[in-house]
Amino acid sequence: MKVLVTGHGGFALGMAAASRMIVGDQELIDWLPFEEGTNLSDYQAQIAARVERHGEEGLLILTDFKGGTPFNVSMLLSQGHPQVAVLAGTNLAMILEAIDQAPTASSVTDLADHLVVIGRQGLLKGVLQARN
Amino acid sequence: MKVLVTGHGGFALGMAAASRMIVGDQELIDWLPFEEGTNLSDYQAQIAARVERHGEEGLLILTDFKGGTPFNVSMLLSQGHPQVAVLAGTNLAMILEAIDQAPTASSVTDLADHLVVIGRQGLLKGVLQARN
Repeated sequence: MKVLVTGHGGFALGMAAASRMIVGDQELIDWLPFEEGTNLSDYQAQIAARVERHGEEGLLILTDFKGGTPFNVSMLLSQGHPQVAVLAGTNLAMILEAIDQAPTASSVTDLADHLVVIGRQGLLKGVLQARN
Repeated sequence: MKVLVTGHGGFALGMAAASRMIVGDQELIDWLPFEEGTNLSDYQAQIAARVERHGEEGLLILTDFKGGTPFNVSMLLSQGHPQVAVLAGTNLAMILEAIDQAPTASSVTDLADHLVVIGRQGLLKGVLQARN
Protein backbone atom coordinates (compact mmCIF):
# COMPACT_ATOMS: atom_id res chain seq x y z
CA MET A 1 0.00 0.00 0.00
CA LYS A 2 1.18 3.52 -0.83
CA VAL A 3 0.14 6.86 0.69
CA LEU A 4 0.07 10.08 -1.34
CA VAL A 5 -0.24 13.50 0.33
CA THR A 6 -1.26 16.34 -1.98
CA GLY A 7 -2.68 19.83 -1.61
CA HIS A 8 -2.37 23.48 -2.59
CA GLY A 9 0.88 25.43 -2.43
CA GLY A 10 3.20 24.30 0.32
CA PHE A 11 0.68 21.97 1.98
CA ALA A 12 2.30 18.65 1.02
CA LEU A 13 5.92 19.74 1.50
CA GLY A 14 5.06 21.52 4.76
CA MET A 15 3.44 18.33 6.07
CA ALA A 16 6.45 16.37 4.84
CA ALA A 17 8.85 18.63 6.75
CA ALA A 18 6.71 18.47 9.89
CA SER A 19 6.42 14.69 9.89
CA ARG A 20 10.12 14.30 9.04
CA MET A 21 10.96 16.34 12.14
CA ILE A 22 8.83 14.04 14.29
CA VAL A 23 9.36 10.55 12.86
CA GLY A 24 12.17 10.93 10.32
CA ASP A 25 12.17 10.21 6.59
CA GLN A 26 9.37 7.98 5.32
CA GLU A 27 9.69 6.03 2.08
CA LEU A 28 6.05 5.06 2.43
CA ILE A 29 4.71 8.51 1.65
CA ASP A 30 4.78 10.35 -1.63
CA TRP A 31 4.36 14.15 -1.29
CA LEU A 32 2.93 15.88 -4.35
CA PRO A 33 2.43 19.65 -4.37
CA PHE A 34 -0.20 21.41 -6.46
CA GLU A 35 1.70 24.67 -6.74
CA GLU A 36 0.46 27.97 -8.10
CA GLY A 37 1.03 28.05 -11.85
CA THR A 38 0.93 24.26 -12.15
CA ASN A 39 -0.71 23.20 -15.37
CA LEU A 40 -3.90 21.37 -14.42
CA SER A 41 -3.45 18.62 -17.01
CA ASP A 42 0.12 18.03 -15.79
CA TYR A 43 -1.17 17.68 -12.24
CA GLN A 44 -3.94 15.32 -13.38
CA ALA A 45 -1.34 13.22 -15.20
CA GLN A 46 0.79 13.03 -12.04
CA ILE A 47 -2.17 11.75 -10.01
CA ALA A 48 -3.26 9.40 -12.81
CA ALA A 49 0.24 7.89 -12.99
CA ARG A 50 0.14 7.13 -9.26
CA VAL A 51 -3.34 5.63 -9.48
CA GLU A 52 -2.18 3.41 -12.34
CA ARG A 53 1.00 2.39 -10.53
CA HIS A 54 -0.56 1.63 -7.14
CA GLY A 55 -4.24 1.10 -7.95
CA GLU A 56 -4.02 -2.66 -7.47
CA GLU A 57 -1.84 -2.88 -4.32
CA GLY A 58 -3.70 0.07 -2.79
CA LEU A 59 -3.29 3.85 -2.75
CA LEU A 60 -4.55 6.20 -0.04
CA ILE A 61 -4.65 9.84 -1.16
CA LEU A 62 -4.68 12.44 1.62
CA THR A 63 -5.78 15.88 0.36
CA ASP A 64 -6.00 19.33 1.96
CA PHE A 65 -9.72 20.11 1.77
CA LYS A 66 -12.97 18.95 0.22
CA GLY A 67 -13.83 20.72 -2.99
CA GLY A 68 -10.31 21.84 -3.81
CA THR A 69 -8.57 20.79 -7.02
CA PRO A 70 -6.37 18.12 -5.35
CA PHE A 71 -9.46 16.47 -3.83
CA ASN A 72 -11.58 16.79 -6.97
CA VAL A 73 -8.90 15.46 -9.31
CA SER A 74 -8.15 12.54 -6.98
CA MET A 75 -11.82 11.65 -6.66
CA LEU A 76 -12.32 11.70 -10.41
CA LEU A 77 -9.25 9.57 -11.12
CA SER A 78 -10.04 7.07 -8.34
CA GLN A 79 -13.22 6.00 -10.14
CA GLY A 80 -13.15 2.33 -10.98
CA HIS A 81 -10.26 1.66 -8.59
CA PRO A 82 -11.73 0.11 -5.43
CA GLN A 83 -8.26 -0.02 -3.84
CA VAL A 84 -7.84 3.76 -4.09
CA ALA A 85 -9.37 5.92 -1.32
CA VAL A 86 -9.37 9.72 -1.06
CA LEU A 87 -9.59 11.70 2.18
CA ALA A 88 -10.11 15.45 2.64
CA GLY A 89 -9.29 17.67 5.62
CA THR A 90 -5.96 15.97 6.34
CA ASN A 91 -4.22 17.01 9.54
CA LEU A 92 -0.81 16.00 10.85
CA ALA A 93 -2.24 13.48 13.33
CA MET A 94 -3.62 11.50 10.37
CA ILE A 95 -0.31 11.53 8.54
CA LEU A 96 1.56 10.30 11.62
CA GLU A 97 -1.05 7.56 12.07
CA ALA A 98 -0.80 6.61 8.38
CA ILE A 99 2.97 6.26 8.73
CA ASP A 100 2.43 4.01 11.73
CA GLN A 101 -0.47 1.91 10.41
CA ALA A 102 -0.11 1.67 6.62
CA PRO A 103 2.55 -1.08 6.68
CA THR A 104 0.18 -3.49 8.46
CA ALA A 105 -3.28 -2.22 7.41
CA SER A 106 -5.54 -4.88 5.90
CA SER A 107 -6.96 -2.63 3.17
CA VAL A 108 -6.96 0.96 1.95
CA THR A 109 -10.62 1.29 2.86
CA ASP A 110 -10.03 0.16 6.44
CA LEU A 111 -7.07 2.50 6.84
CA ALA A 112 -9.05 5.40 5.36
CA ASP A 113 -11.95 4.83 7.77
CA HIS A 114 -9.54 4.56 10.69
CA LEU A 115 -7.74 7.78 9.74
CA VAL A 116 -11.03 9.71 9.64
CA VAL A 117 -11.68 8.65 13.23
CA ILE A 118 -8.11 9.43 14.36
CA GLY A 119 -8.10 12.77 12.56
CA ARG A 120 -11.40 13.86 14.11
CA GLN A 121 -10.38 12.68 17.59
CA GLY A 122 -7.16 14.65 17.34
CA LEU A 123 -9.01 17.76 16.19
CA LEU A 124 -10.00 19.38 19.46
CA LYS A 125 -9.91 22.38 21.73
CA GLY A 126 -7.36 22.08 24.53
CA VAL A 127 -8.86 22.36 27.99
CA LEU A 128 -6.81 22.86 31.13
CA GLN A 129 -8.02 20.62 33.91
CA ALA A 130 -7.06 20.54 37.56
CA ARG A 131 -6.25 17.13 39.00
CA ASN A 132 -7.39 15.94 42.41
CA MET B 1 -8.91 39.03 17.53
CA LYS B 2 -5.72 37.49 16.20
CA VAL B 3 -5.08 33.98 14.88
CA LEU B 4 -1.71 32.23 15.27
CA VAL B 5 -0.84 29.07 13.31
CA THR B 6 2.12 27.10 14.66
CA GLY B 7 3.50 23.59 14.31
CA HIS B 8 6.55 21.45 13.64
CA GLY B 9 8.90 22.03 10.71
CA GLY B 10 7.22 23.47 7.64
CA PHE B 11 3.66 23.04 8.97
CA ALA B 12 2.87 26.73 9.53
CA LEU B 13 4.60 28.06 6.40
CA GLY B 14 3.15 25.24 4.30
CA MET B 15 -0.36 26.11 5.51
CA ALA B 16 0.42 29.78 4.87
CA ALA B 17 1.43 29.06 1.27
CA ALA B 18 -1.62 26.86 0.71
CA SER B 19 -4.10 29.41 2.07
CA ARG B 20 -2.35 32.24 0.21
CA MET B 21 -2.86 30.34 -3.05
CA ILE B 22 -6.58 30.01 -2.30
CA VAL B 23 -7.59 33.30 -0.65
CA GLY B 24 -4.54 35.56 -0.98
CA ASP B 25 -2.44 37.23 1.70
CA GLN B 26 -4.02 37.48 5.14
CA GLU B 27 -2.91 40.09 7.66
CA LEU B 28 -5.12 38.42 10.24
CA ILE B 29 -2.95 35.33 10.60
CA ASP B 30 0.45 35.08 12.16
CA TRP B 31 2.42 31.97 11.05
CA LEU B 32 5.05 30.77 13.53
CA PRO B 33 7.23 27.74 12.70
CA PHE B 34 8.75 25.50 15.34
CA GLU B 35 11.70 24.42 13.23
CA GLU B 36 14.21 21.69 13.95
CA GLY B 37 17.02 23.13 16.03
CA THR B 38 14.85 25.90 17.46
CA ASN B 39 15.77 26.62 21.04
CA LEU B 40 12.75 25.66 23.15
CA SER B 41 12.97 28.70 25.40
CA ASP B 42 13.14 30.99 22.34
CA TYR B 43 10.00 29.34 20.99
CA GLN B 44 8.26 29.65 24.35
CA ALA B 45 9.19 33.34 24.45
CA GLN B 46 7.72 33.82 20.95
CA ILE B 47 4.40 32.30 22.00
CA ALA B 48 4.45 34.17 25.34
CA ALA B 49 4.96 37.49 23.55
CA ARG B 50 1.92 36.84 21.37
CA VAL B 51 -0.21 35.80 24.36
CA GLU B 52 0.80 39.01 26.16
CA ARG B 53 0.15 41.15 23.09
CA HIS B 54 -3.24 39.69 22.15
CA GLY B 55 -4.42 38.04 25.38
CA GLU B 56 -7.02 40.73 26.05
CA GLU B 57 -8.45 41.28 22.54
CA GLY B 58 -8.38 37.53 21.89
CA LEU B 59 -5.90 35.05 20.41
CA LEU B 60 -6.77 31.75 18.76
CA ILE B 61 -3.78 29.40 18.45
CA LEU B 62 -4.08 26.66 15.81
CA THR B 63 -1.50 23.89 16.34
CA ASP B 64 -0.53 20.79 14.37
CA PHE B 65 -1.32 17.95 16.79
CA LYS B 66 -2.25 17.23 20.39
CA GLY B 67 0.75 16.42 22.56
CA GLY B 68 3.35 18.06 20.36
CA THR B 69 5.54 20.90 21.62
CA PRO B 70 3.58 23.66 19.84
CA PHE B 71 0.33 22.46 21.43
CA ASN B 72 1.88 21.87 24.87
CA VAL B 73 3.67 25.23 25.00
CA SER B 74 0.56 27.06 23.84
CA MET B 75 -1.63 25.32 26.42
CA LEU B 76 0.77 26.14 29.23
CA LEU B 77 1.10 29.79 28.27
CA SER B 78 -2.64 30.24 27.74
CA GLN B 79 -3.31 29.58 31.42
CA GLY B 80 -4.99 32.53 33.08
CA HIS B 81 -5.93 34.07 29.72
CA PRO B 82 -9.62 33.30 29.10
CA GLN B 83 -9.47 35.07 25.72
CA VAL B 84 -6.78 32.67 24.44
CA ALA B 85 -7.91 29.32 22.98
CA VAL B 86 -5.72 26.51 21.63
CA LEU B 87 -6.79 23.95 19.02
CA ALA B 88 -4.98 20.80 17.92
CA GLY B 89 -5.30 18.80 14.71
CA THR B 90 -5.59 21.86 12.48
CA ASN B 91 -6.47 21.22 8.85
CA LEU B 92 -6.69 23.65 5.96
CA ALA B 93 -10.50 23.82 6.08
CA MET B 94 -10.23 25.30 9.60
CA ILE B 95 -7.70 27.90 8.52
CA LEU B 96 -9.86 28.99 5.59
CA GLU B 97 -12.87 29.21 7.92
CA ALA B 98 -10.85 31.19 10.49
CA ILE B 99 -9.86 33.68 7.79
CA ASP B 100 -13.53 34.04 6.87
CA GLN B 101 -15.03 34.15 10.36
CA ALA B 102 -12.45 35.72 12.70
CA PRO B 103 -13.19 39.33 11.70
CA THR B 104 -16.81 39.03 12.89
CA ALA B 105 -16.63 36.30 15.55
CA SER B 106 -18.13 37.25 18.91
CA SER B 107 -15.39 35.58 20.99
CA VAL B 108 -12.33 33.40 20.69
CA THR B 109 -14.14 30.58 22.49
CA ASP B 110 -17.07 30.69 20.07
CA LEU B 111 -14.75 30.72 17.06
CA ALA B 112 -12.68 27.86 18.50
CA ASP B 113 -15.79 25.71 19.06
CA HIS B 114 -17.03 26.52 15.57
CA LEU B 115 -13.70 25.60 13.97
CA VAL B 116 -13.67 22.21 15.69
CA VAL B 117 -17.04 21.45 14.08
CA ILE B 118 -15.97 22.77 10.65
CA GLY B 119 -12.65 20.93 10.81
CA ARG B 120 -14.29 17.62 11.69
CA GLN B 121 -17.01 18.03 9.04
CA GLY B 122 -14.37 18.70 6.42
CA LEU B 123 -12.36 15.66 7.47
CA LEU B 124 -13.95 12.86 5.48
CA LYS B 125 -13.61 10.07 2.99
CA GLY B 126 -14.75 11.01 -0.50
CA VAL B 127 -17.50 8.83 -1.87
CA LEU B 128 -18.54 8.75 -5.50
CA GLN B 129 -22.29 8.76 -5.84
CA ALA B 130 -24.45 8.23 -8.86
CA ARG B 131 -27.25 10.75 -9.39
CA ASN B 132 -30.73 9.81 -10.57
